[in-house]
Amino acid sequence: MNRTTPWRTGMVGAGYMAKLHSLSMNNLAGLSQDPRDRFELVRIVDSDLAAAEQEAGRWGWKAFGDDWRQVTRSADIDVVSVATPNDLHHEICLDAFRHGKHVLCEKPLATSARSALELARAAHASGRVHRVNFTYRSWPAIAQAKALISQGAIGAVRHFEGHFFQDHNNDPTIPLHWRFRQGPAGAGALGDVGAHIIDLARFLVGEVDSVVATTQRFIDQRPLPHDRQRQGAVEVDDLACALVQFRSGASGTLKASWALPGYKNDVYFVVVGEHGAIRFSWERSNELQVFDSADAAPLSGYRTIPLGRAHPGAELFWFPALGGEQDVGVTAQGMGYGDAFVLGFRDFSQALRQGESPAPNFVDGLRCSEITDAILTSARERCWIDVDHAPVA
Amino acid sequence: MNRTTPWRTGMVGAGYMAKLHSLSMNNLAGLSQDPRDRFELVRIVDSDLAAAEQEAGRWGWKAFGDDWRQVTRSADIDVVSVATPNDLHHEICLDAFRHGKHVLCEKPLATSARSALELARAAHASGRVHRVNFTYRSWPAIAQAKALISQGAIGAVRHFEGHFFQDHNNDPTIPLHWRFRQGPAGAGALGDVGAHIIDLARFLVGEVDSVVATTQRFIDQRPLPHDRQRQGAVEVDDLACALVQFRSGASGTLKASWALPGYKNDVYFVVVGEHGAIRFSWERSNELQVFDSADAAPLSGYRTIPLGRAHPGAELFWFPALGGEQDVGVTAQGMGYGDAFVLGFRDFSQALRQGESPAPNFVDGLRCSEITDAILTSARERCWIDVDHAPVA
Amino acid sequence: MNRTTPWRTGMVGAGYMAKLHSLSMNNLAGLSQDPRDRFELVRIVDSDLAAAEQEAGRWGWKAFGDDWRQVTRSADIDVVSVATPNDLHHEICLDAFRHGKHVLCEKPLATSARSALELARAAHASGRVHRVNFTYRSWPAIAQAKALISQGAIGAVRHFEGHFFQDHNNDPTIPLHWRFRQGPAGAGALGDVGAHIIDLARFLVGEVDSVVATTQRFIDQRPLPHDRQRQGAVEVDDLACALVQFRSGASGTLKASWALPGYKNDVYFVVVGEHGAIRFSWERSNELQVFDSADAAPLSGYRTIPLGRAHPGAELFWFPALGGEQDVGVTAQGMGYGDAFVLGFRDFSQALRQGESPAPNFVDGLRCSEITDAILTSARERCWIDVDHAPVA
Amino acid sequence: MNRTTPWRTGMVGAGYMAKLHSLSMNNLAGLSQDPRDRFELVRIVDSDLAAAEQEAGRWGWKAFGDDWRQVTRSADIDVVSVATPNDLHHEICLDAFRHGKHVLCEKPLATSARSALELARAAHASGRVHRVNFTYRSWPAIAQAKALISQGAIGAVRHFEGHFFQDHNNDPTIPLHWRFRQGPAGAGALGDVGAHIIDLARFLVGEVDSVVATTQRFIDQRPLPHDRQRQGAVEVDDLACALVQFRSGASGTLKASWALPGYKNDVYFVVVGEHGAIRFSWERSNELQVFDSADAAPLSGYRTIPLGRAHPGAELFWFPALGGEQDVGVTAQGMGYGDAFVLGFRDFSQALRQGESPAPNFVDGLRCSEITDAILTSARERCWIDVDHAPVA
Repeated sequence: MNRTTPWRTGMVGAGYMAKLHSLSMNNLAGLSQDPRDRFELVRIVDSDLAAAEQEAGRWGWKAFGDDWRQVTRSADIDVVSVATPNDLHHEICLDAFRHGKHVLCEKPLATSARSALELARAAHASGRVHRVNFTYRSWPAIAQAKALISQGAIGAVRHFEGHFFQDHNNDPTIPLHWRFRQGPAGAGALGDVGAHIIDLARFLVGEVDSVVATTQRFIDQRPLPHDRQRQGAVEVDDLACALVQFRSGASGTLKASWALPGYKNDVYFVVVGEHGAIRFSWERSNELQVFDSADAAPLSGYRTIPLGRAHPGAELFWFPALGGEQDVGVTAQGMGYGDAFVLGFRDFSQALRQGESPAPNFVDGLRCSEITDAILTSARERCWIDVDHAPVA
Repeated sequence: MNRTTPWRTGMVGAGYMAKLHSLSMNNLAGLSQDPRDRFELVRIVDSDLAAAEQEAGRWGWKAFGDDWRQVTRSADIDVVSVATPNDLHHEICLDAFRHGKHVLCEKPLATSARSALELARAAHASGRVHRVNFTYRSWPAIAQAKALISQGAIGAVRHFEGHFFQDHNNDPTIPLHWRFRQGPAGAGALGDVGAHIIDLARFLVGEVDSVVATTQRFIDQRPLPHDRQRQGAVEVDDLACALVQFRSGASGTLKASWALPGYKNDVYFVVVGEHGAIRFSWERSNELQVFDSADAAPLSGYRTIPLGRAHPGAELFWFPALGGEQDVGVTAQGMGYGDAFVLGFRDFSQALRQGESPAPNFVDGLRCSEITDAILTSARERCWIDVDHAPVA
Repeated sequence: MNRTTPWRTGMVGAGYMAKLHSLSMNNLAGLSQDPRDRFELVRIVDSDLAAAEQEAGRWGWKAFGDDWRQVTRSADIDVVSVATPNDLHHEICLDAFRHGKHVLCEKPLATSARSALELARAAHASGRVHRVNFTYRSWPAIAQAKALISQGAIGAVRHFEGHFFQDHNNDPTIPLHWRFRQGPAGAGALGDVGAHIIDLARFLVGEVDSVVATTQRFIDQRPLPHDRQRQGAVEVDDLACALVQFRSGASGTLKASWALPGYKNDVYFVVVGEHGAIRFSWERSNELQVFDSADAAPLSGYRTIPLGRAHPGAELFWFPALGGEQDVGVTAQGMGYGDAFVLGFRDFSQALRQGESPAPNFVDGLRCSEITDAILTSARERCWIDVDHAPVA
Repeated sequence: MNRTTPWRTGMVGAGYMAKLHSLSMNNLAGLSQDPRDRFELVRIVDSDLAAAEQEAGRWGWKAFGDDWRQVTRSADIDVVSVATPNDLHHEICLDAFRHGKHVLCEKPLATSARSALELARAAHASGRVHRVNFTYRSWPAIAQAKALISQGAIGAVRHFEGHFFQDHNNDPTIPLHWRFRQGPAGAGALGDVGAHIIDLARFLVGEVDSVVATTQRFIDQRPLPHDRQRQGAVEVDDLACALVQFRSGASGTLKASWALPGYKNDVYFVVVGEHGAIRFSWERSNELQVFDSADAAPLSGYRTIPLGRAHPGAELFWFPALGGEQDVGVTAQGMGYGDAFVLGFRDFSQALRQGESPAPNFVDGLRCSEITDAILTSARERCWIDVDHAPVA
């Protein structure tokens, strides 16, 4: 599948994520050393036609429309990017595979493990490239963490502590949009931001075998979006906390909330192993912290490592090489959220070239949904729940 | 019980804690503005007579011995300080109450909730003053956190995250001393350091109703203390993780370990409420972090507050008043671990004067043991366990 | 000058900065709410034609060439972006003004105050819009710092501490490229990175009246770029330290280095006023620290404020509004170095629309050069030097 | 001078420092493994007899009085501790040496270099042990920093940045006590807290050859101590900033203030060498930060090292050894300001035993005064000033 023409891309959804997908595809073309890393912005669709038109104008999509079939079924499109409310992923992705498209789907893949299983099986059967947009995996600090763990830098993992905490939804005047309703969202904070920390736990430590969890809802009523004088019932969790057992024997906790004051955008984890530990917080996304038990006692402490071109993925950006013999270039200029998406599309482009679907693919999306479902079940039933690992093929 | 003669004190145990108790009682006499805050170091005993003699010489104990009854039954002693292996607390404390002594006992109060209940009932029945040495409650940053929560500064608590993590026991050449054996210790990391974070959870958030937990042991064998060529079996936990439900409705996690690389002495908690949050780590014990949702958006962020004479207890130390109208004096000179014990003895001295046993008393020691037992049971039985709250009187 | 056609732009220099300028102009078109914020990438030139061709291909420049006059004199170009070695700015900018172009010039504006004065006068006389690319002024944290100071949040400034420290040039195998030679660079670390901290000092505190300084060179010889077996002499400073007197009466220090181990990309300042202080480090570019003496003593401490849409310029990016009544949206997703340039071009676009040249313009570039020259003179002559403030018009 | 009887000590001054000296001498007796580390608290004197009586009662001084000659001339005293207003050091120390006493004098040694020179010569001529109480040198983090530098861990020092900043005197209602008057104090912030950072600069980097400086006064008038309705003139500096040249060729800045908002007790330094750097702030006194350029690029960053028994001096305290083969014990329990003084007295005790006067002795006090005088002169005369290094013997 070695080709030099760009990947002709259609996007379904002109909401928040359209900005980040569009910007990333455009930037990748300039930033990548590889001329094959190119996406052509062919068509963007949204049930809100005006939104589609606006994003098209901003980012250079050649066409726009209001029917997602104009993307999934169009002959001039190779790749479909799906960024709709969660419950629409199912129908759109299935249609895209049916029409021979490669698919990048936003997270969470589905609103239930059952739906996710169907999608993963369809993805597998299609022979097409599939990816769930768990962008954090590609972030240089996190990719570096993974590399260190794989190299044995901290030994076998003993404990994982992870959360994704925000506080923006603690404002009760935010209206009852789709993320607060069970049908379109599937889960609340757990589905929205928790999906990321669940995925990182699997990425860094491996499969989760069982969970026990609680959930809480802090704000029960919100104004209706189209009639703010009236209130409607919130149907999803504001906080989920799980104690988890990894297959490897490690223990862990996974937590997600969008309404805990003081946390702004804290994708946080610490992975503690037999002889070292690695710590990261998105609130200081441009640094990684690493502890090595082998350091001499008077020098024993966490290193705070600013990101630079020595870290996987950063070489794509503005950290200049300087021509020295062991040159690592300038470091710590800083990367942002948009750059995380560029890296996700870079990885997707490589996958497309190779015609393979490395992680995070639809099977990873499925595993995340299985854990999500297990957490919600455990919170309802107040007991440990074994996580399904349904076979895909 | 208003008196000016010092509290005649006997100490049982000349191990590690003897240093901190002795130093604290001596320093309190100088630091306190109140001349009644005085302890007289009458007698120290230890089954290892040489150890008792050495501590006596260092700190000015007037006498030493090798039989704890020389302390619990001696007519020239008012107050007994107990700092022995955990399983000896039971017999010694009972004997001390029986002979009319006031008792300060090191944590954990007992090796089981059953033993702790008997002790708490005896303490209550004795009419004497009783205290469990949960020193962290008196620390200015933590006392300030408590005050803020009590004043409603963060609203109702939603979530508590707490751990006490160290890594020093990750060295497998440390011999199999009593803390690694079930009998004398009761529990491992959970009993030794976990007791503190359990106590702080109760102090800051209130009673715990139920728990679900896991425990892990990382090092199964250790050299025998008196024959290091041979190994013996470790019988206790190296890591305990619990998901907890507070009576108030708040959720939380409590974790304890003495073998997680990278954590040195991390008594850590974050208390998140409806409209604010408070964060603390002993690894930066001289600061407190406070978040207030009411701050204007452009200035919204955690405050990092260095400890000074504005914080409860700090006025005892070296933060000078300077004579200004709203004077808070010099701040941030720093307090240390020894100073935490001074504050514990200051609070104990006040309790003795008033003839009352405010928290942390033997009932708090019991509640901690009940939670500890529930965590261990939950880890064995793999289910949620309701925590006992046995009536004391 | 209200217009909707994009600003037809030519770029001189296809080195490191071409990437950032090109990416920023492209991204601005998508990110800005204002359809007039558009630059058309007409032509890029470089004496290295292959480099120009490569950048053109990457970023969508419609044409490329090897003669800068193809940009400064071309009828299809409105705006010239200059990113060449420092000593070439002079001739190119003069030619651009002479041919009626608006000019954005990289920092430092010139290799001497004398040259800078000529440029500033030409810019002023031309009636065209001129800007020196001091990108940090537009960064949300720094713009917020400026706003706070202007509002009186910290009172009159007493002291300013600023540095721009890196360590990448501490590698002696980096060849003797133009930045290490007096002719093309003008100054070393002081000109390259020091220009930014000098500009920020002026931005935040005001004019500098006098300086006293030292400079040091740590690496005297470097391999010749085209014959690395031979060494040539480094001609510029690796570290400059200045004590400065501001016109307002405040004191300060300004330091710049590219070879101080441990500093990666540390644009650092603290501005201390009568009743507050503001602190920033680019190594944690996504946060701002603010201290307010008015806080009650028990809560007195620096706030660490994560950047979000409440801060000037951030609204351009991916911090979503959520529709609440006092909505500030999601915060702390993080912005990167590239985004700083987007903001610079946004400000430049506004200036172009208004036909005015707000700071940082060529006069600011001149003032920076005057301070640079004074620092170098002071270091040579070992005395206080009054800074020139040559009249421009 | 090997002896087992304690050093019979007299103290002149029952103000703020009496607490710290008394507490330290008492604690040292218990904490030190060496039974010779004992001071006997024989007599404390102060012109305010009531203050002397009160401190005597608190700390166990056997006698008290109101005439310093009762200390300097008493046959039952071996060692004199001087903690009076700065201008009294001169007469008291001279008298003490004249009567054969060993002397520990608080910093700054004198109110002028001329006075300090006379004291240093008298100290040297006396043959007695002399020490200036620059307590920070003994602090484990700083002693570790010194050890690392001495071992070549960072190579030759290139730059030193140091300050001692506080803000407590920014309160204009603090009365005009002796520290605000030229006569008794000699200098303001520069003498009071600046003395410490000057001493640390010499300790870590070596002799200072020349300085250029500015000083500022922020609060010109303060209430008279005994008639607060009336104001008197402050005579000293609130902020001093110096650019310094070390003999070694390194550059540096030294700053001192007691009225810069946001700084609480910030004894701060960074020492940057050829291939590493060391950073410390008293506001996080229980950690040291170390950077090593030799670390591999993906792991390159400052280590944050919590203090523990691996660091010089900490072994005296409560960091327990645990009996492992390479045992470093528990770390990070934290030490406080009082403990710094214990370490100072431990070092003094060793000096007394050896009959020698290692740094920081009266010659170090003199060098500090010479630098202080040079800074004040430079600020007045607006030029570089060479620092005197008057010969003592």
